Amino acid sequence: MNDQSGEKKVCLVIGAGAGIGGAITKKFASAGYHVCFARRSDRTGLTNMEKDLRTSGYSVSGHILDVTKEDVIEELIGEIEQKVGSIHTAVYNVGAQIGNRSLEDTKLKTFELGWRLGTFGLYRLAKELLPVMAARGAGNLLVTGATASVRGNSGQHSHAATMASRRMLCQSLNAEFAERGVHICHIIIDGLVDAPDTLGKMLGPKQFELLRQSKGYEKNGLLLPNHIAETYYQLAHQHPSTWTFETDLRPHSAVPWWNHITRDF
Amino acid sequence: MNDQSGEKKVCLVIGAGAGIGGAITKKFASAGYHVCFARRSDRTGLTNMEKDLRTSGYSVSGHILDVTKEDVIEELIGEIEQKVGSIHTAVYNVGAQIGNRSLEDTKLKTFELGWRLGTFGLYRLAKELLPVMAARGAGNLLVTGATASVRGNSGQHSHAATMASRRMLCQSLNAEFAERGVHICHIIIDGLVDAPDTLGKMLGPKQFELLRQSKGYEKNGLLLPNHIAETYYQLAHQHPSTWTFETDLRPHSAVPWWNHITRDF
Amino acid sequence: MNDQSGEKKVCLVIGAGAGIGGAITKKFASAGYHVCFARRSDRTGLTNMEKDLRTSGYSVSGHILDVTKEDVIEELIGEIEQKVGSIHTAVYNVGAQIGNRSLEDTKLKTFELGWRLGTFGLYRLAKELLPVMAARGAGNLLVTGATASVRGNSGQHSHAATMASRRMLCQSLNAEFAERGVHICHIIIDGLVDAPDTLGKMLGPKQFELLRQSKGYEKNGLLLPNHIAETYYQLAHQHPSTWTFETDLRPHSAVPWWNHITRDF
Amino acid sequence: MNDQSGEKKVCLVIGAGAGIGGAITKKFASAGYHVCFARRSDRTGLTNMEKDLRTSGYSVSGHILDVTKEDVIEELIGEIEQKVGSIHTAVYNVGAQIGNRSLEDTKLKTFELGWRLGTFGLYRLAKELLPVMAARGAGNLLVTGATASVRGNSGQHSHAATMASRRMLCQSLNAEFAERGVHICHIIIDGLVDAPDTLGKMLGPKQFELLRQSKGYEKNGLLLPNHIAETYYQLAHQHPSTWTFETDLRPHSAVPWWNHITRDF
Repeated sequence: MNDQSGEKKVCLVIGAGAGIGGAITKKFASAGYHVCFARRSDRTGLTNMEKDLRTSGYSVSGHILDVTKEDVIEELIGEIEQKVGSIHTAVYNVGAQIGNRSLEDTKLKTFELGWRLGTFGLYRLAKELLPVMAARGAGNLLVTGATASVRGNSGQHSHAATMASRRMLCQSLNAEFAERGVHICHIIIDGLVDAPDTLGKMLGPKQFELLRQSKGYEKNGLLLPNHIAETYYQLAHQHPSTWTFETDLRPHSAVPWWNHITRDF
Repeated sequence: MNDQSGEKKVCLVIGAGAGIGGAITKKFASAGYHVCFARRSDRTGLTNMEKDLRTSGYSVSGHILDVTKEDVIEELIGEIEQKVGSIHTAVYNVGAQIGNRSLEDTKLKTFELGWRLGTFGLYRLAKELLPVMAARGAGNLLVTGATASVRGNSGQHSHAATMASRRMLCQSLNAEFAERGVHICHIIIDGLVDAPDTLGKMLGPKQFELLRQSKGYEKNGLLLPNHIAETYYQLAHQHPSTWTFETDLRPHSAVPWWNHITRDF
Repeated sequence: MNDQSGEKKVCLVIGAGAGIGGAITKKFASAGYHVCFARRSDRTGLTNMEKDLRTSGYSVSGHILDVTKEDVIEELIGEIEQKVGSIHTAVYNVGAQIGNRSLEDTKLKTFELGWRLGTFGLYRLAKELLPVMAARGAGNLLVTGATASVRGNSGQHSHAATMASRRMLCQSLNAEFAERGVHICHIIIDGLVDAPDTLGKMLGPKQFELLRQSKGYEKNGLLLPNHIAETYYQLAHQHPSTWTFETDLRPHSAVPWWNHITRDF
Repeated sequence: MNDQSGEKKVCLVIGAGAGIGGAITKKFASAGYHVCFARRSDRTGLTNMEKDLRTSGYSVSGHILDVTKEDVIEELIGEIEQKVGSIHTAVYNVGAQIGNRSLEDTKLKTFELGWRLGTFGLYRLAKELLPVMAARGAGNLLVTGATASVRGNSGQHSHAATMASRRMLCQSLNAEFAERGVHICHIIIDGLVDAPDTLGKMLGPKQFELLRQSKGYEKNGLLLPNHIAETYYQLAHQHPSTWTFETDLRPHSAVPWWNHITRDF
């Protein structure tokens, strides 16, 4: 996809493994974008993903990026803007889930890491990129949220604290930048995602496959990354008269976050 | 658009004048649906709309329908299901806005009418149609919400009461029918819509045109029905693994409902 | 309790059986108010309650009042204001819970009744009383909410629709009347109440007693009406510089409405 | 106030200057508690406050405490629990407001400091104290929230991010500790507080006095710390069957966070 100057449009995906981020990378690339995608670790996985996408004829470049390290986000954005092209859409898809841990089992360091991954990384990305987008009067920042963005729960001290923070940061960014042409959008992923790199690793391969058999596949009880990516793509292409700030996504058979299982009286 | 049996897919739009409902009618018709659209009054407007759409080669049928009258919703659904085809997507887009009125100026009859238009009509539609969709294991119910769906305000006694009710009815319907294959989706229209039949009538033609000049047109400060319709169409075609229950839409330059103009300290 | 003119202060409680409403009646009466309390039916229960309270030296008067009947709310308020005294605090505690019923099992008449009890009765009360309070520059309207005020659920079509409506009506009333000196307060009762007239009747005496033994008594797992009444009383006596619009109440061991039982990943 | 063993009950207030925290200190002390209060700086102010309170016959001890420093919260709690007595109620009232600053004007260090003050300090307090309270089966943690706890806004990037995080941390703590007897309560202060140490310093003495004259005094348009303290005290003494998790407070004439000034159509 080319912009008016004939230049290829650029999409940046931070947090792109074999799940939502990977699917978004593929979706935007297949639509003609050059996609810069980044993941925290696993150079081999990164190179393979790059190869696969290029084999399909897509224009992509992969980066290893630990968002908790100083200056790395800022440098990557600078490099892309200078050497690759203007970022049309940035996706912040870095997870901060550590499973359920009691307060006692959540260390101070873990809690701080949750904040660095969940909130501070987005803040740094925004600080570097949004003024540039605003100067151009155009751009999208799509941010992945979770159930924990909208309610705390037992065992979710670190996760809920950082995801709620991320959401309110998005509201603040929206209030400052939407009228200047930058579309901020927060997508609440309210269910289990069929993603080997996150849920798969948390459960282990065997339990993950059992879950897929009981809930996923034809039952559509797990969120499918490719379909999530469709929604992200549509959100990045809404007309400025008609923007979404927040949307939620869940499998048709999942219980939404606001519904108890307990019966009401 | 035909379903597996080769039959044309049917879309029903209740509340279809020269605004959101009309644009949704056009969008679904242009995508190959047969669209049954209904509006409260104005037979001439209805006939003209029907003619225009048919001239474009679309398959549509218009109905005059006052949702506050007994049995009419139920009968229309029965008629469509029997004679036209299975309803794939139903849109409840009936407005209940009466402008800002103080408590004293809002009569009991007005308040009750607000409830009949805003809530009870949707309830009756759901009661008639959702069990049928659930038996087929498929179908969409898209419901238009408003700023008043999520917060009350001075002068909004009737409107906020009925729109919040509509929203919670949607949550209840979703809890009962989503796992049975029926997609319920509530779309919060959080801004002024560039629609002559609603905003235009409320303001009068002169003030409406002034508003368009100051906020709309190239400034994209009014929601454009055609772009709203895009989102409705996308929502009706999400994969069952990845459904949206709620999304919001507003012009890029509009202040969202949760933001004061007053500064924080 | 007397106001500056030496007149006894008046409290009106609508929905006063052997639960929250009864406890509020007792609390305000014991603090020196004259309390007019009303319930839908059961003349004997009413008379006994009246006797008991008077035996304790309290000043009360009981009324049978079916809020769904025309003019009765308006007449009662007129009568009290004329013959008894200025209403300092009005409590709308009318329930609209019908237990869990599927969409199919909820009749149109039932849904409409839910609206009349849950929303319309409050609207009529507000319309009659709030302008009078505003003219005096003082007064309280305390409104009982429920879990269903803030989220819909399976089987809660009627209840959630009307309780959400009630809540947004309160927000609208607050926006119009708070600055004129009328304190509107919405209290979310987010748990089971140890009340024989509501929960007790729904469960039957045997199951109700079993529930009390398993959850209530020393375990404090059921909301106790007397303690709820404490909070209502405090809310009615907040200083105008420091008003609460919304508060929630639940037993310490209850799961709040926003928490799943399902584990997060 | 003495507990069953005859020991004086202890209240700990973190963030106690000449505003909400100071008023809470006074309220609990006047009710018979020994109150340990802490503020970030101003040794003279601390000593004067201590003197004043002791002159009134109250039992208090003041501490200088910078919650961003390692181990200091943990050590203070250990010291109090060992040498003074069991903490009955802890109040986390540390502010994180920096006024309105654009994204560009909010430095990374400032954003991180906001998190340390707003979120991490509470987390450390909870981690140290809540297991101890849970082992006793009793205790209260009252946490001050703000408008920014529930919505982001232009200029509020740091403040909203940390206050929303604080709120979700409270929800997570509540989910883990309420059933074990620890009452977590989050109080949303949704308006300007008549407090010289916070609002007064932000505005400067002259503008602060002008604001008091235009909004405060007899107009009750600024939140009064003494009345806020009343509510905190009541919340700390609710019966376990009937606990509040969240409540809001604002002046009667203030516009609540969910209400625009813009009119609806």
